[in-house]
Amino acid sequence: MKETPTQLSLVKRVEVRFSEVDSIRAVWHGNYVKYLEDAREEWGRKYGLGYMTIFENGYYAPVYQLSMQYLQMATVNDVLLVNIVYCKTIGGKIKFQYEIRRESDDAPVLKAESLQLFTTREGEFSPCAPDFYVKWQQEHNI
Amino acid sequence: MKETPTQLSLVKRVEVRFSEVDSIRAVWHGNYVKYLEDAREEWGRKYGLGYMTIFENGYYAPVYQLSMQYLQMATVNDVLLVNIVYCKTIGGKIKFQYEIRRESDDAPVLKAESLQLFTTREGEFSPCAPDFYVKWQQEHNI
Amino acid sequence: MKETPTQLSLVKRVEVRFSEVDSIRAVWHGNYVKYLEDAREEWGRKYGLGYMTIFENGYYAPVYQLSMQYLQMATVNDVLLVNIVYCKTIGGKIKFQYEIRRESDDAPVLKAESLQLFTTREGEFSPCAPDFYVKWQQEHNI
Amino acid sequence: MKETPTQLSLVKRVEVRFSEVDSIRAVWHGNYVKYLEDAREEWGRKYGLGYMTIFENGYYAPVYQLSMQYLQMATVNDVLLVNIVYCKTIGGKIKFQYEIRRESDDAPVLKAESLQLFTTREGEFSPCAPDFYVKWQQEHNI
Repeated sequence: MKETPTQLSLVKRVEVRFSEVDSIRAVWHGNYVKYLEDAREEWGRKYGLGYMTIFENGYYAPVYQLSMQYLQMATVNDVLLVNIVYCKTIGGKIKFQYEIRRESDDAPVLKAESLQLFTTREGEFSPCAPDFYVKWQQEHNI
Repeated sequence: MKETPTQLSLVKRVEVRFSEVDSIRAVWHGNYVKYLEDAREEWGRKYGLGYMTIFENGYYAPVYQLSMQYLQMATVNDVLLVNIVYCKTIGGKIKFQYEIRRESDDAPVLKAESLQLFTTREGEFSPCAPDFYVKWQQEHNI
Repeated sequence: MKETPTQLSLVKRVEVRFSEVDSIRAVWHGNYVKYLEDAREEWGRKYGLGYMTIFENGYYAPVYQLSMQYLQMATVNDVLLVNIVYCKTIGGKIKFQYEIRRESDDAPVLKAESLQLFTTREGEFSPCAPDFYVKWQQEHNI
Repeated sequence: MKETPTQLSLVKRVEVRFSEVDSIRAVWHGNYVKYLEDAREEWGRKYGLGYMTIFENGYYAPVYQLSMQYLQMATVNDVLLVNIVYCKTIGGKIKFQYEIRRESDDAPVLKAESLQLFTTREGEFSPCAPDFYVKWQQEHNI
């Protein structure tokens, strides 16, 4: 099996902003990309694989694929809980699964997956896992 | 086969804004959701299936699924050409495929798909295709 | 004197998002409008003059004037403290003063002022203070 | 008089996006900051004082003050015409005045002013006008 969820997860709390809802008072669907990134950044800080760590090792990890499934609308003042889980994959990839629920009634709001690849700072895709990432995986028994 | 691209397509021209690039001077990946919607809105105006038409018939058509594949980074002042194609599906769905290319060098930037479902104004999912949508499909030989 | 700061204030904590910084790693200057609104919404909930309260009384309170002075750049992962103060004015206006500081070093980041006017739901400006607002002011000794 | 409008102006055409209107179908007030910047970027390309020119001369020109006055609401699919005028000032400042009108009925939508100062790439404010800016002013008879 290529992708296996791991124990490396967390829940990020996000408050929906007034400016994030659209003309039918639902969170505009593009704003969820921000909420997912909020969770990813928090995850990176917690597990030592954040944006800055990657950068300082000479790489970027741009999002290569992103898919979202919208289950229920959220609205102004809703508090959303973004559950993010790191998934084990083969090679130089960073894969996450996400589930967003509304805090007040635990309603499922969104499911998503993202896949990041490594590039050098010049923008060249890195076919293999960078050394620092292999080491990070070993330290976390992945 | 469930989904077939049709001739109902167009190309929407989008200029990348300064505020849309991130700290590595690439368009922030969430901003593509706006570019796709720009194309969808223009398509709706051209083919008579826009946001307002749907609303006036008593429905919303929220995005239910969205997936994006990022092929190349775009940056400030790039002009992007968003090609949107309506796909034939079964039942009450609106399905689009997208391809974004950079105008200057025709480089492929992004591929995407979106799926919209119909809901009543009260937010209930509509299991069948609404009458006005069936009629619209017939008028366009779909 | 036309405008006097009152005791009706609060401090809203905001985390800067990755997607909110621009290509020189500074918070893009337009994003501060969101942070100010975050504070205003929180203030509205605390003091009973929020978006929904105004709406339920038959009015909107759109921003009529907004001015911002940028003192220092903030960047990714900075935590900002937005201090918002309600100011006493004449007539049907809602006036706020804001000061944003960085949590880590208390550096001043932004100063701002906003002025909102009342409109009916049809969009007509209301020349006088609506009754519910006069009552709200009395209850808060303004 | 310290500030004088010049002939260095242009009109930038902006289409309002669906994602830019809020829950009362009006353009969310923070989005005008983007429209103003759109005009400023276009102006910079036309008159040779764009973001990249400033950067290549070793400087940034961050916005130091921004004030906006909202005259009328705009909504989805409105086309806005942003008139931007460069104003003559003393010292190392870049000052613009803006007026936004709706294309369809010429209604005034917004008035604004921005002031930018020069900083070095290290973020230090430059008290004097940089040489390249003095030269640019001379070439344009300012």
